Amino acid sequence: MSRWLQVLMLAGAPVAVFLHFRSPGRHLLIFGAATLALLPLAAAIGRATETLADHLGGGIGGLLNATFGNAAELIIGALALREGLTDLVKASITGSILGNVLLVFGAAAVVGGYRRPVQTFNRTAAGVGTTMLLLSVIGLIVPALLHRVASPAAELRLDTEIAVVLFITYALGLVFTLRTHREVYGAADASETHDSVAGERGSVRGALLLLLGSTAAVAVVSEVLVGSVSATAKDLGLTQVFVGVIIVALVGNAAEHFSAVTMAAQDRMDTAIAIAVGSSTQIALFVAPLLVFLSYVIGPAPMDLLFTPFEIASLGVAVLSIAFIAHDGETHWMEGVQLLAVYVMLALGFFYLPK
Amino acid sequence: MSRWLQVLMLAGAPVAVFLHFRSPGRHLLIFGAATLALLPLAAAIGRATETLADHLGGGIGGLLNATFGNAAELIIGALALREGLTDLVKASITGSILGNVLLVFGAAAVVGGYRRPVQTFNRTAAGVGTTMLLLSVIGLIVPALLHRVASPAAELRLDTEIAVVLFITYALGLVFTLRTHREVYGAADASETHDSVAGERGSVRGALLLLLGSTAAVAVVSEVLVGSVSATAKDLGLTQVFVGVIIVALVGNAAEHFSAVTMAAQDRMDTAIAIAVGSSTQIALFVAPLLVFLSYVIGPAPMDLLFTPFEIASLGVAVLSIAFIAHDGETHWMEGVQLLAVYVMLALGFFYLPK
Amino acid sequence: MSRWLQVLMLAGAPVAVFLHFRSPGRHLLIFGAATLALLPLAAAIGRATETLADHLGGGIGGLLNATFGNAAELIIGALALREGLTDLVKASITGSILGNVLLVFGAAAVVGGYRRPVQTFNRTAAGVGTTMLLLSVIGLIVPALLHRVASPAAELRLDTEIAVVLFITYALGLVFTLRTHREVYGAADASETHDSVAGERGSVRGALLLLLGSTAAVAVVSEVLVGSVSATAKDLGLTQVFVGVIIVALVGNAAEHFSAVTMAAQDRMDTAIAIAVGSSTQIALFVAPLLVFLSYVIGPAPMDLLFTPFEIASLGVAVLSIAFIAHDGETHWMEGVQLLAVYVMLALGFFYLPK
Repeated sequence: MSRWLQVLMLAGAPVAVFLHFRSPGRHLLIFGAATLALLPLAAAIGRATETLADHLGGGIGGLLNATFGNAAELIIGALALREGLTDLVKASITGSILGNVLLVFGAAAVVGGYRRPVQTFNRTAAGVGTTMLLLSVIGLIVPALLHRVASPAAELRLDTEIAVVLFITYALGLVFTLRTHREVYGAADASETHDSVAGERGSVRGALLLLLGSTAAVAVVSEVLVGSVSATAKDLGLTQVFVGVIIVALVGNAAEHFSAVTMAAQDRMDTAIAIAVGSSTQIALFVAPLLVFLSYVIGPAPMDLLFTPFEIASLGVAVLSIAFIAHDGETHWMEGVQLLAVYVMLALGFFYLPK
Repeated sequence: MSRWLQVLMLAGAPVAVFLHFRSPGRHLLIFGAATLALLPLAAAIGRATETLADHLGGGIGGLLNATFGNAAELIIGALALREGLTDLVKASITGSILGNVLLVFGAAAVVGGYRRPVQTFNRTAAGVGTTMLLLSVIGLIVPALLHRVASPAAELRLDTEIAVVLFITYALGLVFTLRTHREVYGAADASETHDSVAGERGSVRGALLLLLGSTAAVAVVSEVLVGSVSATAKDLGLTQVFVGVIIVALVGNAAEHFSAVTMAAQDRMDTAIAIAVGSSTQIALFVAPLLVFLSYVIGPAPMDLLFTPFEIASLGVAVLSIAFIAHDGETHWMEGVQLLAVYVMLALGFFYLPK
Repeated sequence: MSRWLQVLMLAGAPVAVFLHFRSPGRHLLIFGAATLALLPLAAAIGRATETLADHLGGGIGGLLNATFGNAAELIIGALALREGLTDLVKASITGSILGNVLLVFGAAAVVGGYRRPVQTFNRTAAGVGTTMLLLSVIGLIVPALLHRVASPAAELRLDTEIAVVLFITYALGLVFTLRTHREVYGAADASETHDSVAGERGSVRGALLLLLGSTAAVAVVSEVLVGSVSATAKDLGLTQVFVGVIIVALVGNAAEHFSAVTMAAQDRMDTAIAIAVGSSTQIALFVAPLLVFLSYVIGPAPMDLLFTPFEIASLGVAVLSIAFIAHDGETHWMEGVQLLAVYVMLALGFFYLPK
């Protein structure tokens, strides 16, 4: 994105906050301005995190990257939890995974495949990543399977225990990527991404200030966004689930969308697939259980992991699709088209979903 | 098939038409004669289309091949739609995919694997094909997932929109196979099939006459077949769904069955898998949405894409099976046996299915 | 396992039998003693079978191995059938497959992956094995899919027919592994396993005596185990299904668990995956249908193949997980952790399952 466009979009932040207090009835405008403002802010957090991670290096840098990589999703999720909008939160978890796997990677394959007969990538690395994603999403699906059969009394306890298992798996995954198998994931890939996406490097001090500032701004803008989301959905005749799965998820993942497509256009499919798959895995193993834990502290009621049957089916479909495509070790534009087609059909489904 | 046998089977056409007008009560005989007559007619359409495609070459030839490749299924489907037999139409769509993937490819693997320890094929090409099939079938499954949750009012609109998405995907797929990635799909494979299956080449004029004549004959015989199918099912104590999934699908795909097994016996597994997978993909992306569109014009009521849960599960099972087998890059007879075993179990299921 | 430990555990057998007659109310102690005693007995059957198979060689040896490889599961299953505990039998079938695929192979990948960056294995052989497992488990899932839709009257006939199809597939599988593709499966692998696991080879006569003796002892101890299982479940507040899926399955597969982990620790991942996958396939194609047939002879009522929806979903999840991991051709400890995490989440699910 050009710098000027980003500055223009940032102007959405004061507009959204101003309208929020002055004309709280203009939901759509507030929602739109907040959405626009979030895009450059999420990108700034990503940039600052990567700069810091580069300087701190190894373990701590990786940990920072892993924690702040989904900062926008986490902040939006936490604020929505405080308002008791658990359906919205779960829908945006589903939507983040669908968006990364189908929309982001589909668009990357189409853009990258334009005028190239085939794009290849390391089959082994992609296979490891998608297998992890598959196993992670199974973690999200299991509670829902059980909800259909378990007694209501047992549900919440079970979901919390499953969130603990997912979180421990995430922690062990950090040990894996940052310690025992650092050379596979770390150095090369991260710096490559950084060089091309982040532009000129700032100092550590500057990056830290940028990180804190952007995070604070995201929190404020997200507050406004979450406050207007229900009314906006009503105004547009959309369900909360559709807004969560399609719109909020798009906003939260905008940075990943932009990076992956840019990488694919430069024929760096390894990085593109790593972004799409890695971000999805992190949402399943880190963001989702963390929001379950947070819901006990900040929510009016604890959040379970009961996804709707259509959400579950969509997740299964999306993850199987990318698993088969990644095991090929190559993509062409038609595979991108088909991933996008699946995304459009699922989005149509969420649009017509009653509730 | 020997030429004499084909001529003998063709005699079924006049017999079926004669009985249809003279003794309309002898359903079973009419159905049997029509079924027999359709087999050589479908083969003739296939042969004529390939000859024409060869002569016209490239784009137009490929388009012709893609459109007439499933002519028999389309004609039978359209006539059944006119009679309002939408369950039969959907069952024969399911059955065509199951038949191609499990029965045709299973039989090919068994016949080809007899006295050969292993048959290998190009892992990449097969992987691309099965991934496309997987994504195509997901397209058919999504509407059914939504039907369980969407309001009845929204169902038909949604299904038509999904048919549009599938059809656009099909059109882009033609651009892919006929234009940007012609060399992967086109020349070599098609001519190979043609040489061995079609026997001696006719002139363009002869092929065109054969195509028009066979298509007209298929239309007449299909009319008789569709007219007798409900009564035949009743006579035999079978459900309409079973007749559609097993019998009508077998008839419609007889040409593919014969070609794929012949190819496998000659150790040309690449062509065998391309026939089985390509034909299934075409049914999911071209035949199914086209029949939805046609149902608005010729049917008493529009057709939705609501497949039964057992049909959906069967499709998922079948496509996963071939995807795993194809990603191997090799088959042996035992894999063929297991595909056939899955087909037999599913067929037993459709047999016992109430309704 | 050290020899002394085995002897100590064997002492559980007389204790269990003694308590069974003397203090039949002490269920938990009886169940625990019987469980302990079964572990070395199952290992002894495995050892004796392999020794005999080595001496008899080729066809007969392989047949013996295939039949007695799951002797413990079969005996426990048959005795439970006689008591009419069909839910327990089906749960232990599910649990054996889950245990082999997730727990055994997960533990093998973790133990083997400790201090090794990656473990590789023959991608083709593993692919063939997991594809077979996938198709086998589909065989178990199909009846359950149909049960949801078929009329109750047709259910049992259908299930018996499907058991026949599974059994024929198993018989053809024996022809495949013992005759036409012997060199792929036979010699190398089996003797390798034997050398390292079984320790010193006994004479044929000794092996035969050991086989008969251990089998008889397993039968006696299993009788006691099955007799105490319902009461134990009640005492511990567990359901029969949980006991079947987790505890009985663990006991029945203890020998496989031990062998696979030992192999993995020696970096023989090919053998480890062959044990986990092969044992699961055998349960789906041999043990399950055989128990259906036996239920007509020895049970108070015939057993159907109606697995619960959660059992079906778990089987699907488990088999997909190992299929994706095996198609990689390599494992690292994190994949093992994720398989174990899936196992723990499913076990939590079975724990909270009402009934």
